[in-house]
Amino acid sequence: MPRAYDQLEARFKKASVLGDALSVLHWDMATMMPDGGAEARAEQVALLKTLAHQAVTGDDMADLLAAAETEVTGDWERANLREMRRDWVHAAAVPAGLVDAMAKAESACEMVWRQARPNADFAAVLPSLREILSLTIQAGQAKAEALGVGIYDALLDQYEPDGRSADIDAVFADLEGFLPDFIAQALDVQAARPPARLPAGPFPIERQKELGQRVMATLGFDFHCGRQDVSAHPFCGGYPEDVRITTRYNVDDFASALMGVIHETGHALYDFGLPGGRWRTQPVGRARGMQMHESQSLLMEMQACRSPGFLRYAAPLMQEAFDGDGPDWGTDNLYRLSTQVKRGFIRVDADECTYPAHVIIRYGLEKSLIEGRMDLADLPEAWNDGYRRLLGITPPDDRVGCLQDIHWYGGSWGYFPTYTLGAMTAAQLFGAAKAADPDIEPGIARGDFAPLLAWLRANVHGKASSLSTREILIAATGKPLDSAVFKAHLQRRYLD
Amino acid sequence: MPRAYDQLEARFKKASVLGDALSVLHWDMATMMPDGGAEARAEQVALLKTLAHQAVTGDDMADLLAAAETEVTGDWERANLREMRRDWVHAAAVPAGLVDAMAKAESACEMVWRQARPNADFAAVLPSLREILSLTIQAGQAKAEALGVGIYDALLDQYEPDGRSADIDAVFADLEGFLPDFIAQALDVQAARPPARLPAGPFPIERQKELGQRVMATLGFDFHCGRQDVSAHPFCGGYPEDVRITTRYNVDDFASALMGVIHETGHALYDFGLPGGRWRTQPVGRARGMQMHESQSLLMEMQACRSPGFLRYAAPLMQEAFDGDGPDWGTDNLYRLSTQVKRGFIRVDADECTYPAHVIIRYGLEKSLIEGRMDLADLPEAWNDGYRRLLGITPPDDRVGCLQDIHWYGGSWGYFPTYTLGAMTAAQLFGAAKAADPDIEPGIARGDFAPLLAWLRANVHGKASSLSTREILIAATGKPLDSAVFKAHLQRRYLD
Repeated sequence: MPRAYDQLEARFKKASVLGDALSVLHWDMATMMPDGGAEARAEQVALLKTLAHQAVTGDDMADLLAAAETEVTGDWERANLREMRRDWVHAAAVPAGLVDAMAKAESACEMVWRQARPNADFAAVLPSLREILSLTIQAGQAKAEALGVGIYDALLDQYEPDGRSADIDAVFADLEGFLPDFIAQALDVQAARPPARLPAGPFPIERQKELGQRVMATLGFDFHCGRQDVSAHPFCGGYPEDVRITTRYNVDDFASALMGVIHETGHALYDFGLPGGRWRTQPVGRARGMQMHESQSLLMEMQACRSPGFLRYAAPLMQEAFDGDGPDWGTDNLYRLSTQVKRGFIRVDADECTYPAHVIIRYGLEKSLIEGRMDLADLPEAWNDGYRRLLGITPPDDRVGCLQDIHWYGGSWGYFPTYTLGAMTAAQLFGAAKAADPDIEPGIARGDFAPLLAWLRANVHGKASSLSTREILIAATGKPLDSAVFKAHLQRRYLD
Repeated sequence: MPRAYDQLEARFKKASVLGDALSVLHWDMATMMPDGGAEARAEQVALLKTLAHQAVTGDDMADLLAAAETEVTGDWERANLREMRRDWVHAAAVPAGLVDAMAKAESACEMVWRQARPNADFAAVLPSLREILSLTIQAGQAKAEALGVGIYDALLDQYEPDGRSADIDAVFADLEGFLPDFIAQALDVQAARPPARLPAGPFPIERQKELGQRVMATLGFDFHCGRQDVSAHPFCGGYPEDVRITTRYNVDDFASALMGVIHETGHALYDFGLPGGRWRTQPVGRARGMQMHESQSLLMEMQACRSPGFLRYAAPLMQEAFDGDGPDWGTDNLYRLSTQVKRGFIRVDADECTYPAHVIIRYGLEKSLIEGRMDLADLPEAWNDGYRRLLGITPPDDRVGCLQDIHWYGGSWGYFPTYTLGAMTAAQLFGAAKAADPDIEPGIARGDFAPLLAWLRANVHGKASSLSTREILIAATGKPLDSAVFKAHLQRRYLD
């Protein structure tokens, strides 16, 4: 008779293999699939999701999980069992009828939102969004009870396991106090410098692609186990043996695609570095959560590759790629270009100084809505209040206000804070890495990312989900998330 | 309580949706997947195949199928139940252990074959091939018993439902009597004409691709529901809403890729034309079998598009694509190029006159091997005897002899005859189509395939598997497969 634990491993492996197949189907949908295939693909995805869900929610799961507690040996088996239980709680807490209702409401709301956004018509999507919020609260309450945490934390736990809003409140409050003055100072410093100038295009997509893939290889992307394609919304998908990143090109601005490629490569390197073998298909072998995943993309994009050292290395590559010549292609201008600060309405266009403000606004709003302290009808005004308070600007309409992000309209509540937690984690990890290995920074400046990657593999990637985010951070940097590190990074880069 | 029949429809729908997902995974494997992803993909494919198999082989299937017999109403439900039973017999007749052993033996033998073929070393692969043959015979016997037919017919039935070797014996015997003299005459006629000249290349792949997609659109390929990519071995995959064909380009010969594109487009048009709605995911809604599928590709490639009419229409497109000029680009030379006859060793390079000889040789050999009338060790000699007898040539080694095709080494026994049955069916259907609608032939000559496609939709595609191959042929052409039609086509094209 196999151990209860071994039976669980077999079930989670099945769910993992189905998840891998799903990630290929998702990638194909975003990059290759002709429009006509959408409905058939939705059926395939729904069926595979149902089968993966069934694999880890049998009636005997509670008994197996309980029996396995006395069987596990070693840290990784123990951690795996903990993560199995988390998966099961999330999967089993919500009744099938509610899962189905949410999936339908999300598709419906997303459709309405796609019309409402260009029309800046929040009222049009409000009824659908109310439905989403109501179902999300129901699901959140069920998960909160099963996890023994508050409702917002139960939703957050889906994206950032063990993430707690009490911790986020503390670091975000600190940032909220810091940002308005800091941004004003950074803009003053910037105004006193020569303006950043975008080199004149156009930048042919084929050239952009070659440059991007050259930089990907430099960072450590393994094309034997991955590929890069085009999609409307860049993402990183797949699994460690077959990681797929996507890019959106703009012929007038090579820098946006290049930085996007670097960002997604950061995600990809995390996936490449996850443990293989037995843990590859187990919950403990997965990436830790969205905070840590975003930290890996932002460590590459914001910390390593917007540095003067990397830009000194990369400037000749850019010049070569686009036959660039003259002062616009000098390292100084390219650095100013990579570190421009600008108060804007749109989160996805924001620089690293103003980005946290966008996230803090959303975090406060979604928490109030989920906890019933605010009515959805008041969202547009509260949104604009937040922009006035933190960024000193007022969105002219809801298109560039509360209608801009798909998250809430697609049912993703509790996701937003992981962006800024990731940015802070990136700063803290990068600082610790440079302190641990003095060759990391010179390596980056000569296009040798091996020292950095070795440190990340040992301290982050290879740990997978065997530890919590907090434990990984403490082991790697000596302390839990500390907003002082992120603030110091911003001050050094933008005020010195 | 739903009807037993309705329960069956739900199960077969599940298997169909899994099959659709599998076809995307297969396409990706052949066109996009980086090498490193092979092992993970094999796991996904194995799991989805197992789940699809389980969906239609439950313990209660025999009872449900029996109960459904009294419930079905209308021709399509009745036909669907018949095809469900066929699926179930094939899936359930073979014990799981044997299925597994075959899958393993096939992978293993294919690996050995990949080495043995370039080395012309049949002895190296013989033990693995013995294992394959032995397992195939076991499976064939189990299926033969369940279907109440002979062992070869049981294997054939997997590819050509209701196909019977007695019928094939008759038409192949007729062709075998006809071919040697006919080929000799065709070569004489050809020798008396100006030689076909391949226009001078190189032919840039991008141009070949544009020309191919232009011709695909002309034939009726719907890019809203399909796409075209590159793979080492061209194929047509996907499903009616998302049909995917692939091409292999040769920069020195544009004609091979172009004719390949037309061939796969013929397959694709069949898939596009299958019924939608309720029958889309049911056995009755599938393409009829490999004979009919091959007839659709060969009808386009051999019948419609190697005709002088089509080449008159297409010659200017080819000239435009490759800046072609001069007599090599004239319709006469292009027609001679498209209808060259040559005795050769390699089936996949063969013209339509010699192709049947390659198939007849393989058919006779695989039947003897399956029925135990020949030992595998004697295969190379028997193979070469066949080539001497039917084509008057002797393969210099087994690389261009009995090692050339993957079929047997990969476990596909009973497949070969469908190629030539398809070619004969194509001639018969095309003749009937032209007779039924006098605008079909002039349409092709002006690049208007709508009349031909309309006839095929009504008489072949839309019938799906509601009738047998024989019934479809009789309804469409007034008679069962008649080798005289194919012979007349060859005589008209190559001797007149």
